[in-house]
Amino acid sequence: MESDNRSIVDGLRERLTDDWQILQHILKLVQQKETLCADPALWSKEKIVDFKQPNELKQLLDLTINEQEAHSLSDIERICQQIIQYSLKTCHGRFHNQLFGQMDPFGLAGAWLTEALNCSTYTFEVAPVFSLIETEIISTVCRLAGYTKGDGIFAAGGSSSNMYGLVLARYKRCPSVKSTGMFGQRPLVIFTSEDSHYSLKKAAHWLGIGADNCIAVLTNDKGQMSLDDLELKIQEAKARDCVPFFINATAGTTVLGAFDDIAGLADVAQRHNLWLHVDACLGGAALLSHKYRSLVAGLERADSFAWNPHKTLGVPLQCSLFLTRDSDLLARCNSIEASYLFQQDKFYDVSYDTGNKSVQCGRKVDAFKFWLMLKARGYGQYGHLVDHAIDMSRLLEQKLRERPDRFRLVMDKHEYSNVSFWYIPKALRVSSSEETEEWWTRLYTVAPKIKEQMAYSGTLMIGYTPLGSRKLGNFFRMVLTCFPVLEAGELDFILNEIERLGELCEY
Amino acid sequence: MESDNRSIVDGLRERLTDDWQILQHILKLVQQKETLCADPALWSKEKIVDFKQPNELKQLLDLTINEQEAHSLSDIERICQQIIQYSLKTCHGRFHNQLFGQMDPFGLAGAWLTEALNCSTYTFEVAPVFSLIETEIISTVCRLAGYTKGDGIFAAGGSSSNMYGLVLARYKRCPSVKSTGMFGQRPLVIFTSEDSHYSLKKAAHWLGIGADNCIAVLTNDKGQMSLDDLELKIQEAKARDCVPFFINATAGTTVLGAFDDIAGLADVAQRHNLWLHVDACLGGAALLSHKYRSLVAGLERADSFAWNPHKTLGVPLQCSLFLTRDSDLLARCNSIEASYLFQQDKFYDVSYDTGNKSVQCGRKVDAFKFWLMLKARGYGQYGHLVDHAIDMSRLLEQKLRERPDRFRLVMDKHEYSNVSFWYIPKALRVSSSEETEEWWTRLYTVAPKIKEQMAYSGTLMIGYTPLGSRKLGNFFRMVLTCFPVLEAGELDFILNEIERLGELCEY
Repeated sequence: MESDNRSIVDGLRERLTDDWQILQHILKLVQQKETLCADPALWSKEKIVDFKQPNELKQLLDLTINEQEAHSLSDIERICQQIIQYSLKTCHGRFHNQLFGQMDPFGLAGAWLTEALNCSTYTFEVAPVFSLIETEIISTVCRLAGYTKGDGIFAAGGSSSNMYGLVLARYKRCPSVKSTGMFGQRPLVIFTSEDSHYSLKKAAHWLGIGADNCIAVLTNDKGQMSLDDLELKIQEAKARDCVPFFINATAGTTVLGAFDDIAGLADVAQRHNLWLHVDACLGGAALLSHKYRSLVAGLERADSFAWNPHKTLGVPLQCSLFLTRDSDLLARCNSIEASYLFQQDKFYDVSYDTGNKSVQCGRKVDAFKFWLMLKARGYGQYGHLVDHAIDMSRLLEQKLRERPDRFRLVMDKHEYSNVSFWYIPKALRVSSSEETEEWWTRLYTVAPKIKEQMAYSGTLMIGYTPLGSRKLGNFFRMVLTCFPVLEAGELDFILNEIERLGELCEY
Repeated sequence: MESDNRSIVDGLRERLTDDWQILQHILKLVQQKETLCADPALWSKEKIVDFKQPNELKQLLDLTINEQEAHSLSDIERICQQIIQYSLKTCHGRFHNQLFGQMDPFGLAGAWLTEALNCSTYTFEVAPVFSLIETEIISTVCRLAGYTKGDGIFAAGGSSSNMYGLVLARYKRCPSVKSTGMFGQRPLVIFTSEDSHYSLKKAAHWLGIGADNCIAVLTNDKGQMSLDDLELKIQEAKARDCVPFFINATAGTTVLGAFDDIAGLADVAQRHNLWLHVDACLGGAALLSHKYRSLVAGLERADSFAWNPHKTLGVPLQCSLFLTRDSDLLARCNSIEASYLFQQDKFYDVSYDTGNKSVQCGRKVDAFKFWLMLKARGYGQYGHLVDHAIDMSRLLEQKLRERPDRFRLVMDKHEYSNVSFWYIPKALRVSSSEETEEWWTRLYTVAPKIKEQMAYSGTLMIGYTPLGSRKLGNFFRMVLTCFPVLEAGELDFILNEIERLGELCEY
């Protein structure tokens, strides 16, 4: 047994040098045309996805893990090739299904190097360069946001970044919560717009505040949080003997891409002594814009904000920043003595160890891929790409308006690069007087059916969604991202393809 | 202005095809000998780190981000080369500073492919293959753990996985917390050993339970939670009108690598109707072991556990699993209706959408890199590597005992692959009667000094730590990981090098 183990281990050790050659195979696979499909020449030739139902896919791929396996490098290459075949290609230029799309090549390059060095950013000791790079990005973003001091951290994602805001605000309001919890306290209450991200409710659940104490504030016709309704709901909460402590503004709502009036909300927050956090996970990219920076006007007055550069900007997943205007609250709030990791008798300035600020212990380097992009092109270039994406979404609106019998906009003018619309198939084209409730109900079934066609044809992917706040059923929500860098003609393809697929369905 | 933007954007679009060639540069950089240093032939030639103080490093590297930058691919290669030069090489075979070390090449290959495909695992639609792969790993690990049903999710890290356990346990005990929070309730109380990970306290803080309600239970001479002290502290908490609800067992403590008696704790948990969670972030690898599986005996009786395969097994960061014995509690606990993402009118079986179980919305694929490793070698091989790492740590203990004047073990026999010890430099070698309190105080200064030498020489990296539960000052904690696959002779190098560096310092 003992000698068995030794010979197996010796065998493994000996093949390791050869095993590292697998990286060349991966590069080869990634460079083949069907993997990324970032090049416009491939968009009409390669599918975004070769969609199979879960049970079919299980038959096609041998995904089981066994105790005994022995595969050569070329076997592994073949396995990876199958994985690629049936995976969705988010880099394909016709993938517009999420708030992220194609990557910037420098983002992927940074991600690959990050993975190869495999550092954890809890201490400077283990991630010297990456610790400084994280600090550099945080101070750059603070500057862009108008924070004169400020602090921040890269978090596990937008939901996590929003939680940081809540935890900080709660700690500032009642520092004792850190040690003794919220038991016996009057209910703390959060205000966020009805169109805001569900992560706020989920965070309220996790943090022990309760999802019902996350109060939905009405939105106006632009999709912004109503200041009047907010004021009303704050008064109501106080009357119920609850403790308002937190307003979440949204800069770029998930569906409509609406921007709350941050300056107006800052006034309300100031009046009631509430923490103002901005969920700019989607809209934070406006910070870089040359033309649309005013969308986030007033951000400098927010106590904190979250921004996911992996959305719209082409940074690979995950890349999420939490920023706060306070320079030392983050460390005070989140530090828990951990003597094995954050020794104070180290041989360097331990203020560079960021682990104490984080809710994570081990923390992947998410800063470098973004830094490499910014370093390669300068952040001004991304501002031009943000502007282009928004400009193209205005053009898309115009093109939709030019086909009034076939398409209808959910909102007359979107502010950001989200565009929401219905396709009206031939079978449903009626005069306006015939647009009854029943007609609308039928119209709401169109997007899911076209979506199915999209998945099977692999030619285009656009998300659909209902919108409860407006009592609307399913419509398409297309988000224009910085990558691919679209040309106007592509927008015509998109509308034509929706029409083509739309007429393949029965309603 | 408008045409300026257009020409800049056109320029950017045109260079994108060329920009993708950056991936070849990255492969070239990663393949050069100074990057990974995984090959034993390089361990004595290449430094683990070219350590510079933070301020020096800022001078050496131009890390600033500017609005205007324009770099060619070879510029970017040069920049990346500098990043590599001053980064720490966690793949170097002499890096033993953390609970993770060298990667398995197939792990890095999987990570690179994951990054290239850049999917988010919230829905099957966007990550069809990866969703199935996540499910496959979860069911395999459930089987290995002895869960007959079970469910799970890949989390952002071990701290996050432990939080999942707490949130589930709290939801099961008081479902109303999800909607109305913990206000007005009697304090909920957590029990965990004094040697357990600090993430439990931090989680108690975040979840609104409060760090003081995370009760530290004494450990015995093996480093295990004392069942008697646990019983006593549960009684005390009840007497204070608190509500015990959660026991956290540790399988592999951070410093000593001790394993709590899971079966014994399961009895206590059953008696008091408490949730038993096992923080097996470090020790979960014992599940694969052929010789040491009994370290986690009783795991099948735990309600949940956390396991980080990125620790010791060579999976790149992050790879953290949360598993629970319950088959539907995770989804019931964490779902918050998000109609834009988890539509119920999709064209496939939406039970494959895992986003509802997760506290994250967008979620990076952490399953594939681990899956590719297991697929390539079979999980039995990793069991042999775990056994080898533990065997080598016993051999290291023996070698330390063979130099009794120079080294001293903190614990006579460790159970896992952690080995804790002091180096006694010449200047401190005295007879046992002279080992006064003052002598110990001086001994505690040795490891930090040698650690500084290690960083500057770049020849070896081993962590040091004090241990409050035993009132001990700094000692070395070396963790043997599956990669590098060490040979016995390397252990002699390690001890000789500590001696060499130790004699360069003044005490």
